[in-house]
Amino acid sequence: MDDAVAARFAEIVGEHDLLTGDRIPEDYARDESLTCEPSKPAAVAKPATAEEVAALLRMAAEHGVPVTARGTGSGLSGAARPRPDGLLISFERMNSVLEIDVDNQVAVVQPGVTLAELDRSTAAAGLAYTVYPGELSASVGGTVGTNAGGMRAVKYGVTRNNVLGLQAVLPTGEIIRTGGKTSKISSGYDLTQLIIGSEGTLALATEVIVKLYPRLAHTSTLLAPFGDLDKVMKAVPKILASGLTPDILEYIDNLTMAAIVYTEQLSLGVPDEIRDATQAYLVVGLQNRDSDRLDGDVERAGELLADLGAADVYVLDGGSARKLIEARERAFWTAKAAGADDVIDVVVPRSEMPGFLATVREIATAAEAGAIGCGHAGDGNVHLGIFCKDPQRRHELLHDIFAAGMAAGGAISGEHGIGEAKKDHFLALEDPAKIALLRRIKQAFDPRNILNPGTLFD
Amino acid sequence: MDDAVAARFAEIVGEHDLLTGDRIPEDYARDESLTCEPSKPAAVAKPATAEEVAALLRMAAEHGVPVTARGTGSGLSGAARPRPDGLLISFERMNSVLEIDVDNQVAVVQPGVTLAELDRSTAAAGLAYTVYPGELSASVGGTVGTNAGGMRAVKYGVTRNNVLGLQAVLPTGEIIRTGGKTSKISSGYDLTQLIIGSEGTLALATEVIVKLYPRLAHTSTLLAPFGDLDKVMKAVPKILASGLTPDILEYIDNLTMAAIVYTEQLSLGVPDEIRDATQAYLVVGLQNRDSDRLDGDVERAGELLADLGAADVYVLDGGSARKLIEARERAFWTAKAAGADDVIDVVVPRSEMPGFLATVREIATAAEAGAIGCGHAGDGNVHLGIFCKDPQRRHELLHDIFAAGMAAGGAISGEHGIGEAKKDHFLALEDPAKIALLRRIKQAFDPRNILNPGTLFD
Ligand SMILES: Cc1cc2nc3c(=O)[nH]c(=O)nc-3n(C[C@H](O)[C@H](O)[C@H](O)COP(=O)(O)OP(=O)(O)OC[C@H]3O[C@@H](n4cnc5c(N)ncnc54)[C@H](O)[C@@H]3O)c2cc1C
Ligand SMILES: Cc1cc2nc3c(=O)[nH]c(=O)nc-3n(C[C@H](O)[C@H](O)[C@H](O)COP(=O)(O)OP(=O)(O)OC[C@H]3O[C@@H](n4cnc5c(N)ncnc54)[C@H](O)[C@@H]3O)c2cc1C
Repeated sequence: MDDAVAARFAEIVGEHDLLTGDRIPEDYARDESLTCEPSKPAAVAKPATAEEVAALLRMAAEHGVPVTARGTGSGLSGAARPRPDGLLISFERMNSVLEIDVDNQVAVVQPGVTLAELDRSTAAAGLAYTVYPGELSASVGGTVGTNAGGMRAVKYGVTRNNVLGLQAVLPTGEIIRTGGKTSKISSGYDLTQLIIGSEGTLALATEVIVKLYPRLAHTSTLLAPFGDLDKVMKAVPKILASGLTPDILEYIDNLTMAAIVYTEQLSLGVPDEIRDATQAYLVVGLQNRDSDRLDGDVERAGELLADLGAADVYVLDGGSARKLIEARERAFWTAKAAGADDVIDVVVPRSEMPGFLATVREIATAAEAGAIGCGHAGDGNVHLGIFCKDPQRRHELLHDIFAAGMAAGGAISGEHGIGEAKKDHFLALEDPAKIALLRRIKQAFDPRNILNPGTLFD
Repeated sequence: MDDAVAARFAEIVGEHDLLTGDRIPEDYARDESLTCEPSKPAAVAKPATAEEVAALLRMAAEHGVPVTARGTGSGLSGAARPRPDGLLISFERMNSVLEIDVDNQVAVVQPGVTLAELDRSTAAAGLAYTVYPGELSASVGGTVGTNAGGMRAVKYGVTRNNVLGLQAVLPTGEIIRTGGKTSKISSGYDLTQLIIGSEGTLALATEVIVKLYPRLAHTSTLLAPFGDLDKVMKAVPKILASGLTPDILEYIDNLTMAAIVYTEQLSLGVPDEIRDATQAYLVVGLQNRDSDRLDGDVERAGELLADLGAADVYVLDGGSARKLIEARERAFWTAKAAGADDVIDVVVPRSEMPGFLATVREIATAAEAGAIGCGHAGDGNVHLGIFCKDPQRRHELLHDIFAAGMAAGGAISGEHGIGEAKKDHFLALEDPAKIALLRRIKQAFDPRNILNPGTLFD
């Protein structure tokens, strides 16, 4: 990018909010992907309005400058990593909660609002935004980019199910509105849904309308150790079929549990002899507006878990429960600290989890690699820390794991996205007719290919 | 279409399942739209497999033959009305429930399966497909086409929220699979969501994976007459915010109620003096797996409705409840029998319903027309029977009503679609930048514009 172009960008957002050269902090060179090398952009712009974003995109299109959007860079697929010759648009200044609309149970927010901030704003109204990926520093715009999920998705769905509308800027420079404060629309193609999960390659969200739910007063968390991972996996569909509606249904394998108990200094009250005979744990969260009903559900869940083969069932007290959930949310950091070389999140139909995990164990053993983890069991979303130093061998291992997931009727990623990190596998494993169609859709939005080139496609 | 082309189509599906000329029954010339004139296609094909559908589309593309998909023709927007020179693909022979997968709580069905049939198949497994538009003769493929909603959408969402994956044939002839038996995927653009609601203009669904829910054993229906429509509308957000999760939340205005009580010979136990002072009714359906909990919810709902200004609250017995719900489902036929000239289904944020309905009354009065109805109050989805004989005046009236709905933050249609019937209004009122983008997306799927030309766009 030559200085003249950078100067034009600076005219749009103001000198202060256009960074180049040494003024660009290291942080903007990367997201949390473990495998994408950092790469600083030529410039960082911090627009304050949709109009500024539109002007930036028009200018970028005119000069063929690649543009990457950034929320808070907590993504795990390298999709917020900028191009060295490109412009990074950071939404950090567009961080206002514009409206908490109690009657319609929606919030209207700017994309730079973090989930932690949105949680505070909605709490005051007795409402909640139920998309809780592990990282609450994530921005709403970033969760739209990745179609983020998280632990509560088993009850409330993922970002896709909770975003009702957008204001978005097209790479051709127009500002459009999609959807609205309504839960249903049948008037033309659903652009909201198309933009969600597109990892910043189709349009940039400058306002997001999200669905809120009543905040339920009473919560309880059950921990159930199982002697056998297979049994955990087989328990999951049964629990969901029982009519209980857990808002958390996570599995944690014994190695991962050991690592988080150690790192976070948790004490969960599981006696040593049970712990030593445990292959995996199931964590079941229940919520209700009514405490008696919650008690009834906890009792039923306890009986059910015992029937399904749990060695015991612990109802955690509030403090331990919170700590365990937080530790689970930080499982990524635990894996990273333990030296994981990659973290992936294959999704399969939940009935396929036992078979899929058995296949993963086989493939990993054959490759002399490690693959351990935890996951959103209710969603069939398996998060695996991959331990395999050699890049070439790791590439083959991942290929085989992704292929196994797809063969089981699943997909490479349930919620982290493809980004830059898994693009090669995506392009190699996905149906060429679909890839060709995705490319034509990309072209329909972005004829000059300025938005996040290198993400999803080559 | 010349005979040679028809012969080629016949080679694909067999002579018996390719109809031309007088062999084409009148029924195929139309759907249930009140305003689109019937128009017989040049040929009707009844394929039995996705491969046959693909072959038909390749042949049609080669010869520039327009193709319209048809489920059971119960649509209300004219989107299943064929072109006179075109091919109608009827999915009536692709009508098998392929799988009821209890572990994953999904069903895999062919598009020609009707909702009534799917309901029977799922009942046996104690599960339910929760998309219940008024017309259970509708096909699953048709509901994908229109993104159908219905009464249960207030709790379970619309088709979009309940279809997890598709097998679909592209107008370029490829057969693809999108989504799967999983509730979340973040691996490329969401083609499932893009095809849902596209009214047969982007791709044809040849297999549909739908989400099932446990069938709840205990249900109750409350009927609450209100002296004032405004109060009904203001009650709706309060009921939803209360944490009760009604599976039905419908309003019926007094004229519409009078018509359905008369037509269906209902007796609801509302005393004359209350009925005479009623402007609108709220119907609240509640379900629970546990009968005690249901009783608790019914009591709470009753108190709440009284607090919110209901003149009284009637808990209907099973028989009356079923009859009322069925009558509400047939409200379209009642309106048609009463001489309605059109039926529309504007959607607005639910808090905007009182204002929107007041505006509609004003506009209708000024035009010396009638606009009465009922609707999915919980969704802000207002179904209006329009009484206005003069086509020109009716066109202006509809334009004004749609414009008012959009100005209130809503859309022309919540669940019926745009089709042929509302296309002029859609193209006139929607943002031209969005229309241009929709056209580019259409082009990305269907470069030869063979799929349902005339629907959505000119
Ligand atoms: C410890 C930890 C735990 C995590 N747990 C989970 C989890 O449980 N579930 C889960 O889903 N994710 C999880 N994540 C991943 C991450 O939090 C999510 O991917 C989140 O959505 C990223 O938000 P962000 O603001 O950091 O986005 P970024 O990383 O900045 O960007 C993500 C993508 O969105 C695009 N984007 C950003 N802003 C916009 C915009 N305004 N318009 C359009 N596109 C935009 C970017 O270009 C990029 O493609 C975890 C991450 C960490 C570090
Ligand atoms: C009395 C009555 C009550 C109704 N109540 C409701 C209601 O409450 N809620 C609601 O949403 N609707 C309602 N409807 C409308 C109607 O039932 C729905 O629109 C339904 O989705 C239409 O299904 P169908 O099989 O009849 O589709 P059709 O009318 O045959 O087709 C509808 C659209 O889908 C397309 N299509 C059909 N099959 C496929 C396929 N396999 N792949 C891709 N596209 C396809 C067609 O081309 C067309 O664009 C009602 C209709 C009536 C008559």
